[in-house]
Parts: sequence; structure tokens; C-alpha cells
Amino acid sequence: MNLLLLSPTDLVNDNQAVIKGRQLQHILQVHQSQVGDALAVGLINGFMGKGYISRLSTEQAIIEFQLDTPPPAKLPITLLLALPRPKMLRRILQTIATMGVNKLILINSYKVEKSFWQTPFLMPENIQQQLLLGLEQAKDTVLPEVQLVKRFKPFVEDQLPALIKDSQNLIAHLGNYRQCPSLPQQSTTLAIGPEGGWINYEVDKLQQIGFTPVQLGQRILRVETAVAAFLTKLYY
Amino acid sequence: MNLLLLSPTDLVNDNQAVIKGRQLQHILQVHQSQVGDALAVGLINGFMGKGYISRLSTEQAIIEFQLDTPPPAKLPITLLLALPRPKMLRRILQTIATMGVNKLILINSYKVEKSFWQTPFLMPENIQQQLLLGLEQAKDTVLPEVQLVKRFKPFVEDQLPALIKDSQNLIAHLGNYRQCPSLPQQSTTLAIGPEGGWINYEVDKLQQIGFTPVQLGQRILRVETAVAAFLTKLYY
Repeated sequence: MNLLLLSPTDLVNDNQAVIKGRQLQHILQVHQSQVGDALAVGLINGFMGKGYISRLSTEQAIIEFQLDTPPPAKLPITLLLALPRPKMLRRILQTIATMGVNKLILINSYKVEKSFWQTPFLMPENIQQQLLLGLEQAKDTVLPEVQLVKRFKPFVEDQLPALIKDSQNLIAHLGNYRQCPSLPQQSTTLAIGPEGGWINYEVDKLQQIGFTPVQLGQRILRVETAVAAFLTKLYY
Repeated sequence: MNLLLLSPTDLVNDNQAVIKGRQLQHILQVHQSQVGDALAVGLINGFMGKGYISRLSTEQAIIEFQLDTPPPAKLPITLLLALPRPKMLRRILQTIATMGVNKLILINSYKVEKSFWQTPFLMPENIQQQLLLGLEQAKDTVLPEVQLVKRFKPFVEDQLPALIKDSQNLIAHLGNYRQCPSLPQQSTTLAIGPEGGWINYEVDKLQQIGFTPVQLGQRILRVETAVAAFLTKLYY
């Protein structure tokens, strides 16, 4: 937790908050903070700044703070990601929030096991919890938008074309394709498949609406490594 | 498991192997393979090729194979990594093997908890197990070299200078430094610190022997994400 990320319900007024729960435990046990200690503070979807602990007990901490700094810019990217298995999903939600992804669309694919859609990790409050952990790691305040798409074909045919008309549209894919470019200024929609990859039908469907396959070498990366690698190649 | 990676003890002769244990379970339960099914095969630190299952039971599988393809080139990098916490260590071992790191030096740092050195995951056979999982993911056969360094100062002063004299030497570091370059042809030694970073003393020591700090933006990445991001920026 490199940033204490406050939600509106934590606020007593514009310069004071009360912290309990997970964040209090982190301050007590990991940071081993004491009264008077400084810490970086941000407001969810708001500004960041400095604060200090004015009171501290095992029940709660009182934080006094000033918010004067805008959060870092988001990457202008929509990640279209085949739903990963639940354990990996949690880490990927943290990673995409940390790295600055603007929007994540979790989509079904032929090789996504149906049971993955039943995981409690997909409940909105659980998704938000992982995103917050990722933002606290990065020192960012702005929650990425997350959309769940349980049916591939109608979404790709009917809704995706309108979403991608102003972006460069890429499929991360193994094979004899051009190398993924570095495009730090460009809006991108990037499709990353499940373990085992998109099936040909899915690649065809995406190509029909304007996606182009790109690769990053012959090594087959785990999905979470591929996400970090493609984001780095495009924007870092 | 995109590659069935055989050890010499699995071999019956140059074209036949007997598989048991983890790999057999993976073939049966994840791949749900049957007799006659083809699969990619490689020999640890050797060539890769094609094989098929000639016999299959819940006890063992007999694989017939031909090895005719060299493994992908390693990245010419030595990663000097502050020992991560045990759970993250396992994933990072897989990641560095998957991405093609040539050599990994796990080193102590002020912010590495002493207990991390006690984990059974550091036993040679457990390190090798994670590296093999990473190689099977990537379709590579060559085990990275892993070295454990429990004392920072004598290693950096007495042994590291000789190891780095022909490489570009970089410290992944937050701050107002130059951006990490892309150097696909260059030998590199890259130092990545623990959660919380190297302390100034450690950065100074590394700078004294020729390391230069580089950064990848203001977002603070988890160590495993930083490893993937810096490797991608340098070599992918």
C-alpha cells in the first residue's frame, strides 16, 4: 500500500478521514505506523496528496490530509480479455489497475471454462477491491471501468465495432505476425485470449471488424505475463 | 504445459520416454489425451521436437518422439533480484524461465525479511521445479542458472564487478532517471529491488561499480510486474 486510498464514506470533512478495516490493519501491522507518521493519501477517483496520522488505536486511525496533486494519466487502452481462471483474475485485476489500463472488458471465449463465470470474484465489490489494491500499489486513484461480456458473438458483431472505431485494434497472437508496435500516444483496443488462445473463429470475427494480429516473440507467455508485456511494449 | 519437458531419467532410449507423476496427471486431466495424440516434446537443456503417446494408463504414459529443433535463444540478461517473499518467488521463477532470462541472482537486501531465506522454495529441487513449469509454458528447454547470495556487501564489492564487466548495468529505480532503454542485442545486468525498494546505501554500492538507475514511469509496480515490464522493455 503505497497510497492510502480513501472512499467518500471514510471522510469526516475535506481534510480528515477515519480509517478502519483492511487499511487500518495494514497501517498497524505492515507499516507499523505511529501517531504523527506521514503517508501518501488519495481520494478514489479524485486527487492525491499528503497526510499524517493524528490518532491511532486498534479500532481506528484518524488521518489529517491535503489533496493537491492530480493522479497519473491513464493509458488510453481498452483491454479485451478472455475471462481468466479465478485465481489469476484477481492478480490481473490488480495488475491492470497498477499499470494504468483505462477500461477492461472481460469476455467469454470458447476455451473459457463455464465455471469461471460463477466465481464470487466477479461480484462488483470484489472486482473493486482488487482494483483498489492495484491503485494503492501504483499510487493512482482512478478506478478502471470493468465490463463483463458473457456472449462473444453478439458483443463482437453488434457492440464492439462502435467502441473501437477511433482506436488501433490489435490481437495478441502467436504466429508469423508483425511485432507489437510501441504506440505511446495512440488509443488502442487490445484483445488477449485465454490460456490456449483464441480459436480461429474468434480471431476471424475480430479481424472482420478491424483487429490485426501482433506478436511478441515465440515464447508462450502466461496470460498475466502477456498482459504486462503487451502493455509495456505499447505504452511504457 | 505447452511442451512435455523430459529429463534424462525419463528416457528409455533416444526416441522413447516413460512419463509418470505431475506430467502424467497433466496429460490425463488437463489435456485429457488419448493414445495416438501428438504433443510437443523437449529434453531438459536439449533439443525440442514432436512426439505422440503410444501407451497410456493411470500409472504411466509411453511417449515416442523425435528431437530436431533447437530451443529459442535466451535473453542475454543476468537479473540481480532482491529475494522476494516465498509465494511471489515461485511465480517469479516461472516468469523468468518463461521469458528467457539467462541467469538469476537472488540477493539479500536491507528490506528482505530474514525469514524469506528459510523457505523450502529455495531448495534446489524446488527452484528447478518452478523453472521447469516456466520452460514448459514458454516452449523452451534450457534451465536458467540460479545463484543465491545471502550477503549483499561482500558479493557486490568482491564478485559482482568481474561478472558485469562486459554488460550494460542497470538499476530499476523510481525517480527522475532516464527511461529504461530498448537494447535487444546488448548483454545486460539488471538489478530489481524488493517491495519498498533498495535503500540508498545499496543503490550507492551498485552505482560505485558501474550500475545506472533507469525508470519506467511513475507507477510503482509489484516486483513480478516490474520483472515482466523491464524484460519486455529491454528485449521484446
